[in-house]
Amino acid sequence: MRILVPFDSRNPNTRLSSVLDSTERREFAGILLADVCRVIREAGHQPEVLATEPVECSAPVRVDERPLSPAVNAVLSETTEPIAVVMSDLALATKASIEKLFEPESDIVLAPGLGGGTNALCIREPSFRVDYHGGSYRKHCEQADACGATVETVDSFRLAVDIDEPEDLAELLYHGCGQAPAWLREAGFELDERADRCGIRRFDRPG
Amino acid sequence: MRILVPFDSRNPNTRLSSVLDSTERREFAGILLADVCRVIREAGHQPEVLATEPVECSAPVRVDERPLSPAVNAVLSETTEPIAVVMSDLALATKASIEKLFEPESDIVLAPGLGGGTNALCIREPSFRVDYHGGSYRKHCEQADACGATVETVDSFRLAVDIDEPEDLAELLYHGCGQAPAWLREAGFELDERADRCGIRRFDRPG
Repeated sequence: MRILVPFDSRNPNTRLSSVLDSTERREFAGILLADVCRVIREAGHQPEVLATEPVECSAPVRVDERPLSPAVNAVLSETTEPIAVVMSDLALATKASIEKLFEPESDIVLAPGLGGGTNALCIREPSFRVDYHGGSYRKHCEQADACGATVETVDSFRLAVDIDEPEDLAELLYHGCGQAPAWLREAGFELDERADRCGIRRFDRPG
Repeated sequence: MRILVPFDSRNPNTRLSSVLDSTERREFAGILLADVCRVIREAGHQPEVLATEPVECSAPVRVDERPLSPAVNAVLSETTEPIAVVMSDLALATKASIEKLFEPESDIVLAPGLGGGTNALCIREPSFRVDYHGGSYRKHCEQADACGATVETVDSFRLAVDIDEPEDLAELLYHGCGQAPAWLREAGFELDERADRCGIRRFDRPG
């Protein structure tokens, strides 16, 4: 199946600005994207990056400067074929977790993210449109109902964690298996396991 | 299978003290526990509460005043039968997510929690012992290796979210299906969907 991977190539991962500078955030975002494209291919699908400006990448890139929802909906409006949308910062995703998204035969299959978001979805109902602003999981369920589409939800920790806040970096160091955790370690981050919930700390590197 | 449900009946959910007072936390913790016991029964297993002091509850209660790890290990040392441990604050757990824990046939099956914890585990290796302090998921993997036990990890969002920080309440309001989300709404909480990640807000109730 064709899988869109939306990617903010202009100012990625702004919510990581307390721990990564803008050059680092841009590099890190590219590595997250590459990890996601790789597991999509491992799962037998074709990633297609939907970026806000041109980006170097191993997958075909479609540039659309508009915000996330209209950019995705423009693609949906051009086709009646099934299509999936997988966020570019799902760095815990594995072949098996991506495959989960395609197991149910429902018209709409949703993988919720922490905080009420929709981290991945598979769309087999051509009239369905996305709306990613605040609490999108609930909106997508309502929208599927409004289309008369059947809905199923995938229960996956690996698809629920998107890497956009500093605390998410701990999940990545803990459970990640792509290039992104290696990049973080190289950048001086390590797990801080002293608290009940693991955090991160960063060591100064020799300049 | 016998499923231990550890429960801190003395001072539960201390990390929710910014949003719930001590009476509310105690009541809320009892409701989370009841929800977890109910889904364990729905999945065909017998919950057995392991509490720090006597507690009223629909399941048999074993009282052990010691901290979590020695209290659980005391039970493990008394039996060679398979046994599971499921935390009492997994209020997103459903029959299906509990069943996931018993699908793999490995000696040790782990369901990681956010922040490196172990929210649920199934133990079929009699020499295995738990150690819940900081970063327990990694420790449990190492401990299983040391026992020569096979290990498998369950990928479940519903088992990964434990309700112990205020932001977890948003997940519960969003995805919970037991009594706990109803209790929260009754207590004046509602979702705040204005941000990218949903939060919670609480309304004053007439005294």
